[in-house]
Amino acid sequence: MRFDHVGVATRDAATSADLFGTLLDAPVAHRETLDGLDVTFLDLGNGYVELLEPLDAEGPIRRYLDREGPGIHHVALATPDVAAALERARDHGVELVDETPRPGAWGHDVAFLHPGSTGGVLVEFVER
Amino acid sequence: MRFDHVGVATRDAATSADLFGTLLDAPVAHRETLDGLDVTFLDLGNGYVELLEPLDAEGPIRRYLDREGPGIHHVALATPDVAAALERARDHGVELVDETPRPGAWGHDVAFLHPGSTGGVLVEFVER
Repeated sequence: MRFDHVGVATRDAATSADLFGTLLDAPVAHRETLDGLDVTFLDLGNGYVELLEPLDAEGPIRRYLDREGPGIHHVALATPDVAAALERARDHGVELVDETPRPGAWGHDVAFLHPGSTGGVLVEFVER
Repeated sequence: MRFDHVGVATRDAATSADLFGTLLDAPVAHRETLDGLDVTFLDLGNGYVELLEPLDAEGPIRRYLDREGPGIHHVALATPDVAAALERARDHGVELVDETPRPGAWGHDVAFLHPGSTGGVLVEFVER
């Protein structure tokens, strides 16, 4: 399993993209609207920073911003088989947010593990 | 600049290393004691998960755990020149935690940016 991206919750993806683009020398690789979010990927060469700006008044990223403020939201690992990675996590007693893979950004299959089972770290698997 | 690692604050690095080692297929690559921390790097192939367990009653990671609980603490980017990366950040109006590079884990020069200047994201530069 390899590093894929760090997900960052932001109230202003365009400003964050400018800032991180300059500081990290990371150009915009991809942008889409998904599940009420403005999603922007910045290219680090060996992975991405994913900026998540909520467009709706409700939703998990909006609630995260209201509760925690902006910052690092999750870390995503690329695997050739999300279903197998979920099965391994389930066998290890980890609580799953997604019982089965679902479509995520870029059309990839993704699934999240519950941070209560993983030391407070929200982990996403991505089948890239 | 490339992804180097995600830093994770934990109260039990050994248990976290077992858990993430299994879930992410990430073996221990390096372990050391630094600045009152038990520091463990798990190898993702294209970067690392850095587990940070405080050994002392005081210190920034202990305070972070008391305030926020365990979870993702920072993201680190590898650059061939930390001093130049700091200069660029300073020129961009970013507040620095470290005005000059200092020795970090693995003996590498490192420096942190203040998350108040970077959308709540604690950013570390590493000269690997």
